[in-house]
Amino acid sequence: MAISADSFFWDPTAQGTLQAQIRQMIAEGILSGRFRVGEKLPSSRKLASHLGVSRITITLAYTELLADDYIASKGRSGYYVSDDAPQPPNFKATRTAADTVDWSRALGQRFSGGTPFIKPKDWRDYTYPFIYGQADETLFDSANWRLCALQALGKKDFSSLTTDYYDEDDPKLIEFIARHTLPRRGIIAQPDEILVTMGAQNALWMAAQILLTQRRTAAIEDPCYPSLRDILTQSRCHLAPIPVDRDGLPSEELPPDTDVVFTTPSHQCPTTATMPLSRRQALLARAREDDFLIVEDDYEFEMSFLKSPSPALKSLDQDGRVIYIGSFSKSLFPGLRLGYLVGPKPFIDEARALRSSVLRHPPGHIQRTAAYFLSLGHYDALIRRMGKAYFERRQVMEAALNQHGLDIAGQGVYGGSSFWMRTAPDVDTQTLAERLRSKGVLIEPGAPFFGAETPPKNYYRLAYSSIPASKIEAGVNLLAKTLNSPF
Amino acid sequence: MAISADSFFWDPTAQGTLQAQIRQMIAEGILSGRFRVGEKLPSSRKLASHLGVSRITITLAYTELLADDYIASKGRSGYYVSDDAPQPPNFKATRTAADTVDWSRALGQRFSGGTPFIKPKDWRDYTYPFIYGQADETLFDSANWRLCALQALGKKDFSSLTTDYYDEDDPKLIEFIARHTLPRRGIIAQPDEILVTMGAQNALWMAAQILLTQRRTAAIEDPCYPSLRDILTQSRCHLAPIPVDRDGLPSEELPPDTDVVFTTPSHQCPTTATMPLSRRQALLARAREDDFLIVEDDYEFEMSFLKSPSPALKSLDQDGRVIYIGSFSKSLFPGLRLGYLVGPKPFIDEARALRSSVLRHPPGHIQRTAAYFLSLGHYDALIRRMGKAYFERRQVMEAALNQHGLDIAGQGVYGGSSFWMRTAPDVDTQTLAERLRSKGVLIEPGAPFFGAETPPKNYYRLAYSSIPASKIEAGVNLLAKTLNSPF
Repeated sequence: MAISADSFFWDPTAQGTLQAQIRQMIAEGILSGRFRVGEKLPSSRKLASHLGVSRITITLAYTELLADDYIASKGRSGYYVSDDAPQPPNFKATRTAADTVDWSRALGQRFSGGTPFIKPKDWRDYTYPFIYGQADETLFDSANWRLCALQALGKKDFSSLTTDYYDEDDPKLIEFIARHTLPRRGIIAQPDEILVTMGAQNALWMAAQILLTQRRTAAIEDPCYPSLRDILTQSRCHLAPIPVDRDGLPSEELPPDTDVVFTTPSHQCPTTATMPLSRRQALLARAREDDFLIVEDDYEFEMSFLKSPSPALKSLDQDGRVIYIGSFSKSLFPGLRLGYLVGPKPFIDEARALRSSVLRHPPGHIQRTAAYFLSLGHYDALIRRMGKAYFERRQVMEAALNQHGLDIAGQGVYGGSSFWMRTAPDVDTQTLAERLRSKGVLIEPGAPFFGAETPPKNYYRLAYSSIPASKIEAGVNLLAKTLNSPF
Repeated sequence: MAISADSFFWDPTAQGTLQAQIRQMIAEGILSGRFRVGEKLPSSRKLASHLGVSRITITLAYTELLADDYIASKGRSGYYVSDDAPQPPNFKATRTAADTVDWSRALGQRFSGGTPFIKPKDWRDYTYPFIYGQADETLFDSANWRLCALQALGKKDFSSLTTDYYDEDDPKLIEFIARHTLPRRGIIAQPDEILVTMGAQNALWMAAQILLTQRRTAAIEDPCYPSLRDILTQSRCHLAPIPVDRDGLPSEELPPDTDVVFTTPSHQCPTTATMPLSRRQALLARAREDDFLIVEDDYEFEMSFLKSPSPALKSLDQDGRVIYIGSFSKSLFPGLRLGYLVGPKPFIDEARALRSSVLRHPPGHIQRTAAYFLSLGHYDALIRRMGKAYFERRQVMEAALNQHGLDIAGQGVYGGSSFWMRTAPDVDTQTLAERLRSKGVLIEPGAPFFGAETPPKNYYRLAYSSIPASKIEAGVNLLAKTLNSPF
């Protein structure tokens, strides 16, 4: 039987070249069992005319399918579905009739119910996206990233791509982090004191698993990164939220039974405060006295475009009490999922074993691509470019916020990518955010950052990492108008 | 001051084009602070002559660095390190003076001490690598994988690459799994019943976290995949190892208090047994009776080159009691780290929340590349090609094993990629493996697969997934000789 050209249709949502789309139509037809072994394909002339493309496009797609044994040619009589083509199974797929399991009983542990994600997925469609932590594609050096990815996919590197590293990392990436990235934060570490993670989130999660138990106490900053609070809640340790001030975490407020402190000294999340040197030294002295450990999340240190960043807290650590977390995800792009843990070998050994059990290792191809992007200097060039753009945006934004009399609660002395904002106490920024959304303005309500049952509702975060400078004035204007109009 | 051409040296281990290596030398010199702002670079003529390359190579590297603001040109007087170049920090990096922490106390939970990885990392350097689970690069379709990766890095797809998916997956990959992959295993599932994981390892780990507690009992096959036993040991549940026979796991041996059964019905690991239909039905009936759940690891079902695979156990599941685990890692390549979980929505919801807490989501670029590779039919073509090669290797191997009188304990009726082997009871295959290693032969001792304190030592696994057919006869010959010579 011949397959009619009429059974081919363009899928309006399909991507890729026309040739690839034609290949895909035929491969899917064979894999799904619609086209069967021995059936004749339409001639290239007929199919070309039906689909409105040139014959050579059809011929090239057929040639590819021929090479992959999906189709075979029989002399001059044309192409047929090959005897060797993948065949559909000889049984029918069925759907589970009914879910009869009592899942409320069957689930041993629950992980859902944490802080919901507050950013709409279609944030790109809003005119004024003052949201945090999404990459601005216009700043990203996609051309060079693509070149590095290609190099990492090349013949020479192919084994780095296919290899099961078991519990190890790409040695090239580890070497770059040890020799270049960490020294810029004042840290010297050996390769066996570094572990690559699936972003900073994964590093925080591992540190919590290794250092905490149900009987231990973790001190966290209040407000803090909501996902950190979720991670610690899941670990069932005791939580001690410590209110931060304009200098970040005050170590004198830590309870005496503290086992682990989670802190963001370079750039407190979300208030943007930077911890002064004296307070860092006090924190380290207190850690020694009370024998606790510190997990330092050094997020966003690269965005220090106003003045040079101070060295990491870890660089002052004389005792090996600080576990350091760095990340390429935020500044490269969040979808990359690449960060790292730095700490004493006994800790890194446990983290390596845990990671191996949970997921083995971050994919080799991504590690190698990042290693090239870093070692060719593209990463630092990108950071400079982003810093310049953020500097401009920040100036425009600060002027607009001041002009409209909006209250800045924190703005980061080194730079960063956001302002921490405050309204009058009776304003609920959740309601404000909803009203703004209908006007194309996205802001982040502040309540999820706080740990209390009844968190303050009059804070919000305004980021400039995803919004172009040209939109900032109008966006802030809309924000001020909405805030000042009766609810 | 001018930077002397003499300070440039080729790194004999460097990769990439000459132009990229020159760029890297200069970028690293600037980033490390060896080359300082305002210093003059050697002329392209001098550097070309010193490094023994053409001037155009130097000029192109300089042009790239110019575009990235590492260097600036001053009219005709040459290139200088730019004022805007990334600058080294103005503090010195220090190393922690001493690790004064008592880590035996500081570690809340330990994860090290599981089954060590038994394969040498340099397995490629051995002549006869009868080892399992490493990709044979000669079979892999690297050209098309590269094309798919390039497409996924293209402008149209760039947002899929950069986006933080939060807790979601690439919709294209989920759609392909739902529409094409699962129906081939007899399974129909909705997108919200599927979650992408970092390989099968990550899927097994998540299932254990969600379904088990310290008070629950997990039944596992004995022997089984050693990493599964490590995962369950870490979860501190009760473990019930059930000896498998030539039909796999006998459900009548399950203890009455079983909460979750972990099984590999298609292809028992490591004995290669396939569970017959009657036993599958008995297992499902028993699960309903005793109200337990089943985690099905459907690994290696694609390698059914001898006869069509039977449908997955999940396809017979009328109650929603089976959690299904599939993986692209083993057949594509282990470094890819891509698998999936299929189960009722209440379970997948928890897995999604757990994954989000642990690592957010598998990197978008890898998901999209796999989606293209699958939907263009390259994956099935690859499976066919691998199946043919494995079929040949298996025939050669079976003949050699029989000719040398070696005892095959299991060999997989559908195909697979390994033989499960047995020696006389007094042989320790660990010692055998060490003796063979010095002769260039790699085999896997069987003891780590068993759960007992004193496991049987006379089993081993011989895989043909990484060894070419031409080497098999000689390798088996060496193995037989060594086995038969006095220890």
